[in-house]
Amino acid sequence: MATRSLPQHISKQFDQELEDLRARVMTMGGLVEELLSNGLDAMDKSDAEMAERVTNSDYMVNAMEVSIDEECTQVLARRQPAAGDLRLVLAVIKTISDLERMGDEIEKIGRMVVRMCEQDSPKSYYVSVLSMGQHVREMLHDALDVFARMDSGKAVEVAEQDKKIDEEYGAIMRQLITYMMEDPRSISNVLEVVWAVRALERIGDHANNLCENVIYLVEGKDVRHTSIEDMRKEISSD
Amino acid sequence: MATRSLPQHISKQFDQELEDLRARVMTMGGLVEELLSNGLDAMDKSDAEMAERVTNSDYMVNAMEVSIDEECTQVLARRQPAAGDLRLVLAVIKTISDLERMGDEIEKIGRMVVRMCEQDSPKSYYVSVLSMGQHVREMLHDALDVFARMDSGKAVEVAEQDKKIDEEYGAIMRQLITYMMEDPRSISNVLEVVWAVRALERIGDHANNLCENVIYLVEGKDVRHTSIEDMRKEISSD
Repeated sequence: MATRSLPQHISKQFDQELEDLRARVMTMGGLVEELLSNGLDAMDKSDAEMAERVTNSDYMVNAMEVSIDEECTQVLARRQPAAGDLRLVLAVIKTISDLERMGDEIEKIGRMVVRMCEQDSPKSYYVSVLSMGQHVREMLHDALDVFARMDSGKAVEVAEQDKKIDEEYGAIMRQLITYMMEDPRSISNVLEVVWAVRALERIGDHANNLCENVIYLVEGKDVRHTSIEDMRKEISSD
Repeated sequence: MATRSLPQHISKQFDQELEDLRARVMTMGGLVEELLSNGLDAMDKSDAEMAERVTNSDYMVNAMEVSIDEECTQVLARRQPAAGDLRLVLAVIKTISDLERMGDEIEKIGRMVVRMCEQDSPKSYYVSVLSMGQHVREMLHDALDVFARMDSGKAVEVAEQDKKIDEEYGAIMRQLITYMMEDPRSISNVLEVVWAVRALERIGDHANNLCENVIYLVEGKDVRHTSIEDMRKEISSD
């Protein structure tokens, strides 16, 4: 299990810039987590107004991505970092891209909750979705924690949660198909839930990518498209 | 309308490295386009074997991404590029990430075609999907062309095609919902088509990202989260 501290540079200013990048990613991640939390809350309480606010907040996530991305480009141009520093900046660029895509999925969930409220859909449709949503939120929280600590061992553990989320996804889908078959008039309504479940599953995938970015950063190994077992081997082979 | 040629460097070797990066992106893009084409062909001919081959080919796209990404990191570390060169390398990193995600979506389409063949689904389900698929393929082809020519004016035009694809997506979805309502036993089968349509829509989104990357590269402006109208303004304001 490896963790990584920020390197110390002769230039204190450069240290500060890297630390600042990392802090800004954490702020962006915190915002995404909060929006997901609020989106699930809005679903739970059938609160269309809250869901609307979630949907309308995605622009903040987008703005953060553009701004951090710009800062990364400037750091690369000005500091011409090498080795670990370079990997840090590249990992930040990838991480914020994943966070931004999570924001897009959360926006969809918000829109879906608004429509569910309008249609007054029975709550039975989304009880299990809420439970899956909590697991996704926990996984995102843990993935951000992994990024904050730069802990590649923990990264593998968190990445494993994605498998469970995929299983939940499969079970909920089967349930939703049953609802649709039993009452074809509900198809449009249930499909809204289907999109939300799909969006949650994708947020899990992106949280998984966050973990892979940390492994790349700490271990210098690209573990995308690698199974959890192989990830473990890669890390323990150091 | 602006295009961009590769800059000439004192180091011929560096010129060669940048040209090589660009050529490798085009090769990767060509592979993705071919797989999409084959996936649609398999759908058209209900050819499960061909669809299986498409699904099994995604590893090649993944391997290309990892390899080009590694080359980008090396170029950044060794050449410490500035300004336009730096933007080129960063645009390549983003472009291959989008191409890789397209590969994932095409893999899903392949799997869906295999299942559709097993279930012997009526062709009426996916006639319009094929037509949408052709438009997505054209958009991808044009987006790769935009990348090859580094043409930001053309990039805006191609990005506009995404709107039409989204409209097609909406129309097909409504049609598929009607099928499900008319024959609830078909729901599982039709949902397979729903996933394929969704995957095509996302490939269109990624092709759109490719165009935005080129605008960023040529104009030095981040136009993500910008409307087509604002993109035009950004470009013509030079």
